[in-house]
Amino acid sequence: MAKDLVFGIDIGGQSAKYGIVNMGGDVLAQDIWETATPPTDAKEYVDTLARALKALLKKAGVAEDRIFGIGVGAPNGNYYNGCIECAPNLPWAHDKVEFARMLEEKMGIPVKLTNDANAAALGEMKYGVAQGMRNFIMITLGTGVGSGIVIDGKVVYGHDGFAGELGHTIAVRDGRACGCGRNGCLEAYCSSRGVVRTACEWLETSSVPSSLRDVKEITSKAVGEAAAAGDVLAIRVLEYTGTILGESLADFIAFSAPEAIILFGGVTNAGKYLLDPTQKAMEENVLNLWKGKVKLLRSGLNQSDAAILGASALGWEADA
Amino acid sequence: MAKDLVFGIDIGGQSAKYGIVNMGGDVLAQDIWETATPPTDAKEYVDTLARALKALLKKAGVAEDRIFGIGVGAPNGNYYNGCIECAPNLPWAHDKVEFARMLEEKMGIPVKLTNDANAAALGEMKYGVAQGMRNFIMITLGTGVGSGIVIDGKVVYGHDGFAGELGHTIAVRDGRACGCGRNGCLEAYCSSRGVVRTACEWLETSSVPSSLRDVKEITSKAVGEAAAAGDVLAIRVLEYTGTILGESLADFIAFSAPEAIILFGGVTNAGKYLLDPTQKAMEENVLNLWKGKVKLLRSGLNQSDAAILGASALGWEADA
Repeated sequence: MAKDLVFGIDIGGQSAKYGIVNMGGDVLAQDIWETATPPTDAKEYVDTLARALKALLKKAGVAEDRIFGIGVGAPNGNYYNGCIECAPNLPWAHDKVEFARMLEEKMGIPVKLTNDANAAALGEMKYGVAQGMRNFIMITLGTGVGSGIVIDGKVVYGHDGFAGELGHTIAVRDGRACGCGRNGCLEAYCSSRGVVRTACEWLETSSVPSSLRDVKEITSKAVGEAAAAGDVLAIRVLEYTGTILGESLADFIAFSAPEAIILFGGVTNAGKYLLDPTQKAMEENVLNLWKGKVKLLRSGLNQSDAAILGASALGWEADA
Repeated sequence: MAKDLVFGIDIGGQSAKYGIVNMGGDVLAQDIWETATPPTDAKEYVDTLARALKALLKKAGVAEDRIFGIGVGAPNGNYYNGCIECAPNLPWAHDKVEFARMLEEKMGIPVKLTNDANAAALGEMKYGVAQGMRNFIMITLGTGVGSGIVIDGKVVYGHDGFAGELGHTIAVRDGRACGCGRNGCLEAYCSSRGVVRTACEWLETSSVPSSLRDVKEITSKAVGEAAAAGDVLAIRVLEYTGTILGESLADFIAFSAPEAIILFGGVTNAGKYLLDPTQKAMEENVLNLWKGKVKLLRSGLNQSDAAILGASALGWEADA
């Protein structure tokens, strides 16, 4: 039987999303494993996941031997050795877990693994706005800030498999404390948590009236919605976020001279309130030779499918 | 006859250096064309250079048909189209000059061209300390700060051929004016001019005794020599320079996760006075996962040969 399908799996702290994808990028079937209290043992995690994958095949009426490969996107996933290493949000992966090997043995299907941002870049290249592009940078603005860098049509993995940690370049020297233990990282400002932090700081230190003062739990979504409703403080928070992001993007361009930078993730739902100041700061700060030449784009993928699609793109690289 | 030799040409504002190089990286013959008052016409420049190359062949007793290719390193040299574009220090190349094509037609030998820092990276990979490395970043600390980035064994040229302008990433936000028209670029601090600028500023604004106060024209070489002789101000100038460099290197590592960063150029002659603070700042500022893992090296090439060797490495890529 033709091996014309792949599995795409997106491993997160709160859930694992997985789907069966064809070569055209259609998600034929998908499901989610909510892992609010995930197993603390890696073997148990893999066993449970493998059962879930087989259940999905059965439910979708897909024969197992049609699956060419399994692609996995996971925090701290290492493309070279298929391991997940010291992932802070995965209790079963605080040490080095040979995830790809374990899942491969359990399923009898080749597995390729990378981190979630690299998977997103692959998905964008295969199915999204980066189709046909050979040089671009994907920035994922979610709970954290991740990046996937594509040069000459290939994801950059670097010497050790961990290249592309642009969320942990210093955006503000001696700035805010970051979860990584250092100060001033891009992630501390431009992740959803960073947006919330800016909003909370400003609400506390200023007396500007804001609808956010009535919000019980401030989220980046709430900030985006307040901005769209004309809330001045929320608009300024997103301007500040976008300016810092744009300044950093200008430096990233000097590294790899990409055709485009593609933004993805929940924070981008703020739309023009984030993107306009980002574009402005990027153009103002980039070296003359690139002014007006590098596109700033939003992901072309449906956000709920994107994680599965991105991981699935890697499934086509899996070989026995 | 076997095509067992290449030309390497290093084009600079003050001179053009050129040599005949064999596959082992021996410079069999070399010469220099001093161009204090260079031609302002590109055709005249290329014609004169071609005559000089032929004269060197004759002098060295090398038959022209032994030359496999010509590699050229030049400011603002574009690998993709062989053009030198808007090079501020080359009066004959203020516009776009199809340098590779012109020289190829004149010599009847294929020509490949890139910028000088990329050429240096190629030379280091073929003949220097980066032999066998597939991922490294070359930083050239000269009159300016340039960079050549190697990922997976290949120099990164990017979408437009101009990737790797790390000298123009922002090291100090809203910092010193840079020659590029922006503020705070790495080049404004860590080039030889940057070192001189720091020294002059500090001499002016402090009353610390320093042997540099007796120097007629302060150069980065003079600062290095003063530091070696124990001059406190000179030592601090180099510490400041190295700290800014190391902070930037920490961010570059997050991009491509290189095995090593290799420093090259006149400023590195300051030795440990520059390299120790650079290494310290790099380690202090890099993301945990890379602490103690990325080598900081000095170029392994003889500086007077390096420019020719680097360019010559590209000569082997030239095809008819």
